[in-house]
Amino acid sequence: MLKLNCDLGESYSLYRLGNDQAVMPLIDQANIACGFHAGDPSVLHQTLKLAIAHQVDIGAHPSYDDKPGFGRRSVSMSSEELRDLIWYQIAAVDGVARTLGGRVCYVKPHGALYNDMMRSPQLLQTVMQAVAAYHSQPALMLLSDANRALHQQRADQLGLTLYFEAFADRRYQVDGSLTPRSQPGAVLTEAQALAQVRLLLTQGLLEASDGSKIALQADSLCVHGDTPSALAMLQQIRQSLGSD
Amino acid sequence: MLKLNCDLGESYSLYRLGNDQAVMPLIDQANIACGFHAGDPSVLHQTLKLAIAHQVDIGAHPSYDDKPGFGRRSVSMSSEELRDLIWYQIAAVDGVARTLGGRVCYVKPHGALYNDMMRSPQLLQTVMQAVAAYHSQPALMLLSDANRALHQQRADQLGLTLYFEAFADRRYQVDGSLTPRSQPGAVLTEAQALAQVRLLLTQGLLEASDGSKIALQADSLCVHGDTPSALAMLQQIRQSLGSD
Amino acid sequence: MLKLNCDLGESYSLYRLGNDQAVMPLIDQANIACGFHAGDPSVLHQTLKLAIAHQVDIGAHPSYDDKPGFGRRSVSMSSEELRDLIWYQIAAVDGVARTLGGRVCYVKPHGALYNDMMRSPQLLQTVMQAVAAYHSQPALMLLSDANRALHQQRADQLGLTLYFEAFADRRYQVDGSLTPRSQPGAVLTEAQALAQVRLLLTQGLLEASDGSKIALQADSLCVHGDTPSALAMLQQIRQSLGSD
Amino acid sequence: MLKLNCDLGESYSLYRLGNDQAVMPLIDQANIACGFHAGDPSVLHQTLKLAIAHQVDIGAHPSYDDKPGFGRRSVSMSSEELRDLIWYQIAAVDGVARTLGGRVCYVKPHGALYNDMMRSPQLLQTVMQAVAAYHSQPALMLLSDANRALHQQRADQLGLTLYFEAFADRRYQVDGSLTPRSQPGAVLTEAQALAQVRLLLTQGLLEASDGSKIALQADSLCVHGDTPSALAMLQQIRQSLGSD
Repeated sequence: MLKLNCDLGESYSLYRLGNDQAVMPLIDQANIACGFHAGDPSVLHQTLKLAIAHQVDIGAHPSYDDKPGFGRRSVSMSSEELRDLIWYQIAAVDGVARTLGGRVCYVKPHGALYNDMMRSPQLLQTVMQAVAAYHSQPALMLLSDANRALHQQRADQLGLTLYFEAFADRRYQVDGSLTPRSQPGAVLTEAQALAQVRLLLTQGLLEASDGSKIALQADSLCVHGDTPSALAMLQQIRQSLGSD
Repeated sequence: MLKLNCDLGESYSLYRLGNDQAVMPLIDQANIACGFHAGDPSVLHQTLKLAIAHQVDIGAHPSYDDKPGFGRRSVSMSSEELRDLIWYQIAAVDGVARTLGGRVCYVKPHGALYNDMMRSPQLLQTVMQAVAAYHSQPALMLLSDANRALHQQRADQLGLTLYFEAFADRRYQVDGSLTPRSQPGAVLTEAQALAQVRLLLTQGLLEASDGSKIALQADSLCVHGDTPSALAMLQQIRQSLGSD
Repeated sequence: MLKLNCDLGESYSLYRLGNDQAVMPLIDQANIACGFHAGDPSVLHQTLKLAIAHQVDIGAHPSYDDKPGFGRRSVSMSSEELRDLIWYQIAAVDGVARTLGGRVCYVKPHGALYNDMMRSPQLLQTVMQAVAAYHSQPALMLLSDANRALHQQRADQLGLTLYFEAFADRRYQVDGSLTPRSQPGAVLTEAQALAQVRLLLTQGLLEASDGSKIALQADSLCVHGDTPSALAMLQQIRQSLGSD
Repeated sequence: MLKLNCDLGESYSLYRLGNDQAVMPLIDQANIACGFHAGDPSVLHQTLKLAIAHQVDIGAHPSYDDKPGFGRRSVSMSSEELRDLIWYQIAAVDGVARTLGGRVCYVKPHGALYNDMMRSPQLLQTVMQAVAAYHSQPALMLLSDANRALHQQRADQLGLTLYFEAFADRRYQVDGSLTPRSQPGAVLTEAQALAQVRLLLTQGLLEASDGSKIALQADSLCVHGDTPSALAMLQQIRQSLGSD
């Protein structure tokens, strides 16, 4: 059964971002900011409470240490530093979650860290090892790309569970990778995205950029709810999927 | 049996502070910085590893969010914000500790937060409630002051274990409170401090500022090891105490 | 001639706050965040450019070092530390302003720092001295409260220009101080606020909480434009005042 | 006349780094941390006061926004963001310097930003444009490398003054570039470094890694004083150079 995941808990200080109250009832998995690109201890508490109330799976959403750039800036660091950074963030979310009656089920890196790990096998290996070594053994969520089988093989060696995700609103290429944003048509219109989701749900297929149908195995669909139109689309996807 | 506790893990970025390698073998309880007044994810990892290797009890040492002031600045915040701040910091240390084979045994607030909570019953209540509610139920370390019995009573109501600590190098007043630093003789010389520790160890007594002997019940003695003379004194105290 | 001042440049990272584009053309003085409670180098650049384009006077809006609390938390620090903190923030805004063709005309402390300085004569003295010593000699904006004459006298001794401000939407007491927010009627309705502004503009008078009319000397009126209703009210005040 | 430059003002919060009091009398140019990789408003104040007292030229030493990594981590950002970041940091140092009776004479990027700009012509162009556009028109200090003439040509087009620096303790290659640290002999011994400095001072020549003599035009020599041996060497270099 395809699940829906969404980035939440990204408010900070006086700043409100996203629409967590409206989105939480519609999703299955919440990627919750850990305080390094967004979020703070009080936002984290509120977001975890909301996730637990709606029985939504809790994901830690760790980032480079980059609040000024919202975690969208790549930051060069050693493997050891990155492992420590990831552990710290998982730990903060997991410990507060347990205090509120939940726990971290999975880890999904945020922003530049996510993009960097999907581009660099070495960085992905560092992330996999960090998550696999974390004491409560959460799963790792990553992109279902052309190297899916290879990722799975490496995770198996570490005893790490993977959740593969797909994007509702991005056009895929025939090899299963995302069409780069620099190319026309890379981001789908709302109608196209909804059609893509339905095809994925009903047949496990996507229409690639060359018009051919490809099979995409995904455990979860990344959705957004931070604009009125995104929220409307999320509601339609939820309906297509059935209630969780 | 009186234990020794010390603040550790206070290096940050390129900055080294303290003498963790030399101090850790000499103490029983390590108050480990959580990243809000000092420390960072990699310093935390190294410090926890060292504590675990020396079988030293791990304490989370949470602080106001004040790296620029090393946690020595009082920061006004609501009870809810303070609770969330404390939970986040315990969680970060505890989760990484568990990944390395340890766990947080107790919580000792740092700097201005420590001083503020010993001055304000309301703030102390907030801290007690926060620590008592934390899922793994660590103890709270606080000052053995004139209100010791009252603190204990409040903690009992919350099911919270308290560790009372005394200071080796501060002169006590006849009511069991610390002589304010503004008064002459408030800070003991090395010889005086060592004598105070020995009296405390052998008879459970302190010589107060008026010369009278008072009983001070303490579970732990706060020591420093960040200067050569502090380290030398710590070694002498360790000898007096016997190995742990 | 009464001027209008407003807090601007308070976006940060990906977070948008306020309505700077709509507000800037309506005001005379922009209190621009310096990066310590809000703002960042790029937000600062954009806000200064906007202020210069609309020939709005540039005010530095320094704060305690408190991004997590949006500068609304009091932070204890020495006079020397506070002076250095204020200088740094004025300098950052003034240097970028000069590079874009403007300069800092005045300084208005933000949030908890503003409130603390209006409550503590010693803190106000520290702020006055810091601003007076700054090389380009900006003015200081502060509340027109019951001690207006005393503030002026102290500023004169330092050669410091003061801008006194009044609040459109707060009810004043007969002694010229603000009715504490804890009391009913402390914050005016929109219609009341507009009436208060008109009375101030036409006769330099305010109706105090006991119904009596008091004279309030103010150089500037603090306004908000961050909600649709605040923006609508600001537009009405601007009309009452005439264009600048 | 070859000048000596050194990184200073890198203490932060409670952390002390470097030996500013001992170094300042021995150098001609101080690269002063701006608060983004090291330093804070009070450290900045003290460092500027010291530089002015010793008539040492003040350089702003801006960095990526990376206190956790001491500015040694590369951070991906747009040209506009980098320009704004550099302006902010120059402004902060320059405004405080002017308040104390000095001014920023030049800008030398720090750590990863320095290395990145020497590797990337596009990044160097961004830095050059940012410094050239700053209102007080400071010079830019950069590495005297194999592309010295090209750098100069680009700077001339911007009306930007360049200060070229050499390293006392690094071995140069025959093309004027630094031997990468990964190669044996890349970092000179103390005796070798002193010999290199003397050759440079007396004849304007360096002995490259292949034994040949090459001419290196440098305006300034980067020195360190943060260890006893570095300080001793700095004192010897100062003697060779004569007093400033």
